[in-house]
Amino acid sequence: MSQERLIEIETGILSQNDRYAAGNRARLAAQGVYAVNLVSSPGSGKTTLLCATIRAMADAQMGDVAVIEGDQQTTNDADRIRETGAPAVQVNTGKGCHLDGHMVGHAMEHLHLHDNSTLFIENVGNLVCPAAFDLGEDAKVAILSVTEGEDKPLKYPDMFTAARIALLNKVDLAPHCDVDLDLYETNLKRVNPLIEVIRVSARTGEGLPEWLDWLARNATAKRGTAEKAAE
Amino acid sequence: MSQERLIEIETGILSQNDRYAAGNRARLAAQGVYAVNLVSSPGSGKTTLLCATIRAMADAQMGDVAVIEGDQQTTNDADRIRETGAPAVQVNTGKGCHLDGHMVGHAMEHLHLHDNSTLFIENVGNLVCPAAFDLGEDAKVAILSVTEGEDKPLKYPDMFTAARIALLNKVDLAPHCDVDLDLYETNLKRVNPLIEVIRVSARTGEGLPEWLDWLARNATAKRGTAEKAAE
Repeated sequence: MSQERLIEIETGILSQNDRYAAGNRARLAAQGVYAVNLVSSPGSGKTTLLCATIRAMADAQMGDVAVIEGDQQTTNDADRIRETGAPAVQVNTGKGCHLDGHMVGHAMEHLHLHDNSTLFIENVGNLVCPAAFDLGEDAKVAILSVTEGEDKPLKYPDMFTAARIALLNKVDLAPHCDVDLDLYETNLKRVNPLIEVIRVSARTGEGLPEWLDWLARNATAKRGTAEKAAE
Repeated sequence: MSQERLIEIETGILSQNDRYAAGNRARLAAQGVYAVNLVSSPGSGKTTLLCATIRAMADAQMGDVAVIEGDQQTTNDADRIRETGAPAVQVNTGKGCHLDGHMVGHAMEHLHLHDNSTLFIENVGNLVCPAAFDLGEDAKVAILSVTEGEDKPLKYPDMFTAARIALLNKVDLAPHCDVDLDLYETNLKRVNPLIEVIRVSARTGEGLPEWLDWLARNATAKRGTAEKAAE
């Protein structure tokens, strides 16, 4: 198959995805739902961090939360989320390497989202493919474990260019690894000068207040913009 | 685009890849080169483990080694490999999420492989897509960091079904994480009852002798089979 033909096919798939994503975005905007797409390598600690986030949001009375979980197989992650009390839908992608707009639209229907709630979409663990697929979210949030190495932003630049914020996770393990947390941040800003970075640990709770503050500020900004547009 | 059309395209891409992979395999067999395809998440420690492996193979006089490095961007990994004295070619896949047979064939030409040597192909860090692409290798070797979580084999079964052996890496970090190494092995064998598992640490050298022994045994078996066939 020629390179030109492959590019044509890829463009076709992406433009179809963009139509579904636009539909999702319109539905989320109509309900004032703030949606984040959590992207990372497998094993960065996305689900554990998300469970800790949901519990902290409940304590802080930050409103309703719902979750869409993407994995090739198993319902483990949705089961873990439901233990926090939040509703969750698991999407199994089978051979698929990322969630797409169509899958997320279907999952949203099952979730019966509440107005002014927060929707977390945990993508398939993959630092490459989910970068190219808009799901209709307000922001991609990249999660990077300190055990992965400071060079990852440079080696997988598409994902960190697409992300609005990076959560540098498992900082409690930093003393046991040969890692330079400042170099992680430097490399993140080399590929995306606008990216925000928060150092977090789901285990110790470090950085969770800053992350919750980021979520609250951005959700409020989205709803404020929507109200202005409606006036 | 219809699902049927997508499947047709995927089948076309894979069958074209298989032709390149078969060409690579024939060239490797003719020279008695044993080739392994190292697959894992980003940040599992593939390159560090590979550098330690190459140094240990040199100490043990296990013959010539060459390396093909796959990454979306940067030549960091090939630079690190060359510091060990082994020749290395970096393949940058750009937007691509895996190496394919065609890329590896090109890289092999640049490497001028020696007879009866070992070729390591370090794939793009991705636990999903490289599972489907034969490169002409003798074995896929999956590397899994103990920091990633025991559920990864269940959630990404294709990769661990495709792999002949799993190296459970960074075992030196196990005491600092809430991990159950036996459960990793149980889950690996649930998705692939024939998979071999070795616990290793590139940092402490734990498990390296067993891993080198595995390489030596399998390379010898390949060359023995080829000699029998030639008699």
